[in-house]
Amino acid sequence: MGSLESNNLNGDIISSHTIGKVITCKAAVAYAAAQPLVVEEILVHPPQKMEVRIRVLFTSICHTDLSAWRGENEAHRVYPRIFGHEASGVVESVGEGVSDIEIGDHIVPIFNGECSECVYCKSKKSSNLCEKFRVNPMKSTMAGDGRCRFSTKDGRPIYHFLNTSTFSDYTVVDSACLVKIDPKASLQKMTLLSCGVSTGLGAVWNTADVEEGSTVAVFGLGAVGLAVVEGARTRGASRIIGVDVNSDKIIKGKAIGITDFINPNDLDKPVHDKIREMTDGGVDYSFECAGNLDVLREAFLSTHDGWGLTVVLGIHPTPRLLPLHPMELFDGRRIVASVFGDFKGKSQLPHFANQCIKGVVKLDEFITHEMPFSKINEAMQLLSDGKSLRCLLHL
Amino acid sequence: MGSLESNNLNGDIISSHTIGKVITCKAAVAYAAAQPLVVEEILVHPPQKMEVRIRVLFTSICHTDLSAWRGENEAHRVYPRIFGHEASGVVESVGEGVSDIEIGDHIVPIFNGECSECVYCKSKKSSNLCEKFRVNPMKSTMAGDGRCRFSTKDGRPIYHFLNTSTFSDYTVVDSACLVKIDPKASLQKMTLLSCGVSTGLGAVWNTADVEEGSTVAVFGLGAVGLAVVEGARTRGASRIIGVDVNSDKIIKGKAIGITDFINPNDLDKPVHDKIREMTDGGVDYSFECAGNLDVLREAFLSTHDGWGLTVVLGIHPTPRLLPLHPMELFDGRRIVASVFGDFKGKSQLPHFANQCIKGVVKLDEFITHEMPFSKINEAMQLLSDGKSLRCLLHL
Repeated sequence: MGSLESNNLNGDIISSHTIGKVITCKAAVAYAAAQPLVVEEILVHPPQKMEVRIRVLFTSICHTDLSAWRGENEAHRVYPRIFGHEASGVVESVGEGVSDIEIGDHIVPIFNGECSECVYCKSKKSSNLCEKFRVNPMKSTMAGDGRCRFSTKDGRPIYHFLNTSTFSDYTVVDSACLVKIDPKASLQKMTLLSCGVSTGLGAVWNTADVEEGSTVAVFGLGAVGLAVVEGARTRGASRIIGVDVNSDKIIKGKAIGITDFINPNDLDKPVHDKIREMTDGGVDYSFECAGNLDVLREAFLSTHDGWGLTVVLGIHPTPRLLPLHPMELFDGRRIVASVFGDFKGKSQLPHFANQCIKGVVKLDEFITHEMPFSKINEAMQLLSDGKSLRCLLHL
Repeated sequence: MGSLESNNLNGDIISSHTIGKVITCKAAVAYAAAQPLVVEEILVHPPQKMEVRIRVLFTSICHTDLSAWRGENEAHRVYPRIFGHEASGVVESVGEGVSDIEIGDHIVPIFNGECSECVYCKSKKSSNLCEKFRVNPMKSTMAGDGRCRFSTKDGRPIYHFLNTSTFSDYTVVDSACLVKIDPKASLQKMTLLSCGVSTGLGAVWNTADVEEGSTVAVFGLGAVGLAVVEGARTRGASRIIGVDVNSDKIIKGKAIGITDFINPNDLDKPVHDKIREMTDGGVDYSFECAGNLDVLREAFLSTHDGWGLTVVLGIHPTPRLLPLHPMELFDGRRIVASVFGDFKGKSQLPHFANQCIKGVVKLDEFITHEMPFSKINEAMQLLSDGKSLRCLLHL
């Protein structure tokens, strides 16, 4: 079904006869850490108060899915469970009280929700944390009643993941975690807005608010790093320096917008010395997308003193503290982290989608593979091997 | 002379017969680490290109003077040397090329200069670093020719300190390190603008840009911390929580503007837990003015997640790194440091002085002692013992 043009999906996908009923459909279920996902029939129960059931049409895989699948953190190992948080689809039915989303709407789920009512969502300051729907990998049930909307065919509950659980033909999501998307947008590409691309691009647009003519260095050219490159390109950065230990990344990097490439292994000096030489003292902005603290330190030192800003996007599962001395902050370099690109998803992603429709933002380069949902384990391996940026699975 | 009304000083202090000549006057000279300063006659040579010679009328002592006097950093031990960087006075003569300052002008020296021409001074971003006149405790000669403008009566050079060296009846300063002050302002009080008070108040006005109604916590109620309190008061903060291990600080704190006081030693829980309870999740802004990394961590955790900002003002002469885990940044708390309150001194301090003249900013509480310059060693001891905030020395 995913091969249909997204603009005319509704009539084909959605019919009223499933509303209020349990749906039997295919999902990829995790039963143990690092074991192949089992694609099998499961039951998806109707949405409850403030929830929405969606027909997932496309899903892709992010490194957070890989980490969770591997069970890297023991506390996350809750099985059976349905992973997946990058997706797009169409609304099948809505629960009581949902007023902003209707059956047939094109939507993108977001793991970092926006309830619009808590102190964070109402804050004029830039935070996109939400009291109820912030990122919480430990959460495995619905916020409303602490129960699951998935079950095995013999009635055993299947747990949720990151407010979304998109590795399933149908999933139930809180309405706070759904963004309504203009049907003119390609749903295939909109899948990317769920996580990685929004994270990188939003870090440029929202967190750093990069100005035209700025200089930028991006450490780590995976999907998030390349989305930073795309963001910097759309903002008119004068110089976009990509840094990666894999020189193959230069190809994709140039296709998207890097103006220079550095492989630290090719240098006889620290990367920050090289970047400072290239940019008359350092870049205005650096983005750490590698999840490595030594890289983070290089990113920090690569910025110009007096005003440089480093944005941390990588995940750092290490007991090590920030490798910065407090007195180094007095040189006027700043460091902040960004979750989901500081996008308040429900209210701000529609604008992002419009920028894609208009061609201001280009997402073609990010989808490197496509395959049917049944091949999800193959897709996981591709990402794990660093061979794909995003593999789009058609459900 | 310092007891004269500052508004009518010029005629009494300045006469043209010293211009271009070596002046013999009193100064407090350091000959070795932690040894009493020697108040003796020295020679002050005429100002060279872009320099200004000033008659110092008032000087006060800051902790940085104490640290340097103690010789805490071996590299700083350059003798003989004249310390001092908080002062006010009147221009005695100007060197070639100085166009913005004239004989008789009331001025305040600033250790963190503003040349107005370098990439930092011209930057629209908030930095107040200056390429040529940024803080550099290692610098001990004039920027122009690398020589000294002070000498002993037998011709031995006496070294400079922090671009200012104000423990002297006369000193020579680069014009980039002088701020012209409205003669309506009390020079006694303007002395405070040279360092500590500007640092604290500027951290609120410039670095954090605290909004009306915000909540603020100030860790360490010395002169800088109390200047933060004054800044927060002038911005209309709704809650100003002072934190200090010395409960005597509550008196001065309340006189200036704290609404609450916490002595961490009186608590059975971490300070940040207490502050989060008091403020429904944490303050909007915290300021670390203690120079202690454990305090810095408490200050960081005392802010509200999602938007809290911690401003580091304390000096941290420790090999320890920032006591923060990289993942903690993802909670949306930010940390920055501020030098000289991010004031671009020459261009922004005149506004600050005007706010003092208008009574918007009140500085009376900061001068706790006054004495003749000859008692400078006594004044150093008062500060060292924590008995004074600022002792104004009259030259």
